[in-house]
Amino acid sequence: MRFETLLIIGGGLIGSSIARAARATGQSKAIFIADTSEAACKTITQLGIADGVADGPADHFAAQADLIILCTPSARLATTAMALMPSMKPGAVLTDVGSVKGHFVEALAGHVRDDIHFVPGHPIAGTENSGPESGFAELFEDRWCVLTPPKDTDETAVAELTSFWEALGSDVAVMEPSRHDIVMATTSHLPHLIAYTLVGTAIDMETVTRKEVVKFSAGGFRDFTRIAASDPVMWRDVFLTNKKATLEVVDRFIEDLTALKRAIRWDDGDTLLDNFAKTRDIRRRILDADKD
Amino acid sequence: MRFETLLIIGGGLIGSSIARAARATGQSKAIFIADTSEAACKTITQLGIADGVADGPADHFAAQADLIILCTPSARLATTAMALMPSMKPGAVLTDVGSVKGHFVEALAGHVRDDIHFVPGHPIAGTENSGPESGFAELFEDRWCVLTPPKDTDETAVAELTSFWEALGSDVAVMEPSRHDIVMATTSHLPHLIAYTLVGTAIDMETVTRKEVVKFSAGGFRDFTRIAASDPVMWRDVFLTNKKATLEVVDRFIEDLTALKRAIRWDDGDTLLDNFAKTRDIRRRILDADKD
Repeated sequence: MRFETLLIIGGGLIGSSIARAARATGQSKAIFIADTSEAACKTITQLGIADGVADGPADHFAAQADLIILCTPSARLATTAMALMPSMKPGAVLTDVGSVKGHFVEALAGHVRDDIHFVPGHPIAGTENSGPESGFAELFEDRWCVLTPPKDTDETAVAELTSFWEALGSDVAVMEPSRHDIVMATTSHLPHLIAYTLVGTAIDMETVTRKEVVKFSAGGFRDFTRIAASDPVMWRDVFLTNKKATLEVVDRFIEDLTALKRAIRWDDGDTLLDNFAKTRDIRRRILDADKD
Repeated sequence: MRFETLLIIGGGLIGSSIARAARATGQSKAIFIADTSEAACKTITQLGIADGVADGPADHFAAQADLIILCTPSARLATTAMALMPSMKPGAVLTDVGSVKGHFVEALAGHVRDDIHFVPGHPIAGTENSGPESGFAELFEDRWCVLTPPKDTDETAVAELTSFWEALGSDVAVMEPSRHDIVMATTSHLPHLIAYTLVGTAIDMETVTRKEVVKFSAGGFRDFTRIAASDPVMWRDVFLTNKKATLEVVDRFIEDLTALKRAIRWDDGDTLLDNFAKTRDIRRRILDADKD
C-alpha cells in the first residue's frame, strides 16, 4: 500500500468522492479530510467517510500523509499548498484536482520542496451538484484523469499516483500543463461559458417569459441548463485562471458563430448545411469510444 | 372517432412516430403514409406501421383523410399543402409539425380552402435520429404540442386536434405564430445553432486534435454533440425560415458572450459570478416542472 495515509483538503463533491472511492477500493488505511467550512466538516463527520476531520489547520494530518490531494477551489490551491508544505513528510506526493493546470504549476514553480513529489492532476469528472453530501464513490469510474507532472518529476511517484487513480476506476493521461489547458478550454471551459451565457440570454429576453422558457425547454435548452447549474465560484475561477486559452477559444467560437449568422442573413443554405453535416462524425466517434 | 382516416405526409422520425402512436392509442381506423423516398416507403411497409403507403402523389389518400399531418422538411410544407388541397375532403383538418410557424402560415395565407380547417402545429419532441426506423409511439408523451391556428379558425377543429395530440400523450398550448417563433428561437433554435457552432469550433482548432476532443468530451462538450448530431437539412431550413427571430436572439447571445469575455479579460470576477449564479434558478424550475 503506497499511500497508507491520505489527506484530502476540501471535502466537497470531488474531495468527498475521492474519500469514498479510496476507502471502497482499499487504497489507504487512514483517510483524513480538512475543510475550512465548519458545516461541511460536520456533514463529513456525520457521513462517516473519513477517519479524521479538521476544520482548521491540517498540519498534524499533513505530517502523517503519504498522499495529499488538494480539492479546494482553484483560487486557493497555491496558498494551501504553500501552507502545508513545511509539515509534509519526506517522500510524500502532493497533487490536486484543479481544472486549470498551467496557472497552478507556475504559482508553485521554485517553491516545491526537493524531498516531496509534486504531481498536479485533474480528474475529468463531476456533476452540477456541490458539497460533501453530493459525492459518491463511483464518480471517477471510466473517466479520464490527466496528470501534468513538471519536468524531472520522479517517475515512480507519477506511476504510483497513476495506480491510485486507476484503482478508483479512471484512465490516466499524462500531458504538459499548457496542452491540458487548451484542450480543456475547448472541451470543457468553452462549453460551460456558452451554457451560462445561453441560459442568461434566455432569462433576459423581454419578449419571452421565464415561464415559457421553462415550459418549452425540451427543444434543446434543457441540456444547457444542467451545465449552467454548475458551481458559479468554481467556474469563475476556472475562467480567470485559464484566461489565455479561454479567450482564444471564445474568440474562435464568436468568429464561427458570426459566420453562421451571416449565412442565415444571406440565405446561404449551403454554408449552413456544410457546417451542420460535419459535426455528426464527432458524435459517432464519441459513442464508438464509449463502447471500447 | 373524429379522425377515422389519417394521412401522414413524410414518414420520418416524427411522421412514423405519429403513425405508431395513433395506432397504439386507437385514434384512427386507417392510417396512410406518403413519402417521396422509395427507400423510406419500403421501410415503412416492412415496419407495418401504416395501412397504406404511397411513394408518389397521395391525392387518393387525401380524398379519404379526415386529418392530414404534414411531416415533410419545412421547406416543402407550403408546396405540399398546396398540392394536396384540391383533393381534400370537405370538413377535413390540415395540420403540420414544422418547427417554424410564421413562415408557413404566411405562405398559405389566402390559399386555404374555406371548407377545410387549417390548424398549424408543432410537437416539441424529437431525437437526434432520423428516418422511419427511428420513430416510436411514446415520442410525444409528456411533451408540449403548440397549435397556432389563424384567426377565425373553427374552434371545434382546434379542440378536436387538441384531443388528438392529448391522446398521444402531449400537453397542448395555443399561441400566435410569431410568439411561437420567438419562444422557439430562444429555447430551441439558438441552442441548436450554438451546439453546431461549438462542435465545429472544436473540430477546427489546430492546437487540439479530434482524438483529444473525443477523449476528453466528458467535461461538458459531450452534451453539445448530441444536439449537434440533429438532422442538418431540417435545421438549415429552421434557421432560414425563422430568420428574423433567430438573428434577434443570436445577436443578444453574442452581446452577452462578449460581455462575459470582457469580464474574463479584465479579471472582473464579480460580473462572472453574478451571471453564473442567476442561471441556477431556471434549472430548479425546470426540475420542479418535471415533478408536476
